[in-house]
Amino acid sequence: MPKYQATLLIELKEGILDPQGRAVEGVLKDLGHPVDSVRVGKVLEIVFLAETLLEAEEKAKAMGNLLANPVMEVFTLEALKELP
Amino acid sequence: MPKYQATLLIELKEGILDPQGRAVEGVLKDLGHPVDSVRVGKVLEIVFLAETLLEAEEKAKAMGNLLANPVMEVFTLEALKELP
Repeated sequence: MPKYQATLLIELKEGILDPQGRAVEGVLKDLGHPVDSVRVGKVLEIVFLAETLLEAEEKAKAMGNLLANPVMEVFTLEALKELP
Repeated sequence: MPKYQATLLIELKEGILDPQGRAVEGVLKDLGHPVDSVRVGKVLEIVFLAETLLEAEEKAKAMGNLLANPVMEVFTLEALKELP
């Protein structure tokens, strides 16, 4: 069965306070980079087996639904590729 | 000055043990998703001002160099766009 690699982004929904982002913003400002805003999320690189690209997409989305907290987070399937 | 949004990915270098990824792998397996491997990293959405796209790219890379630990992490400028 072919192997696929999915890149999932899990980010806080807009409007949800992001203390880690605020901290990074402060650090960047102190280091001379006057940024407007920073939001921090997670990126997951998941390698798994699937018969087809379509099945791989379904599996990746199902995993995203399991891993993201639907109350505060939103996930994006950023990339999906077949591995050699 | 136009506003830009950069998406930076900060991931552990290959070969560096990723306990958080191992934990997610275990959870997915327990929930019926037999994955091969999971690597967890951070995604940063940074909004800042720059005169041109080229200057924005330079600034985004400079911030990535500040935020990633060069010993164990590697950063990628995943996307860069001008905001309306």
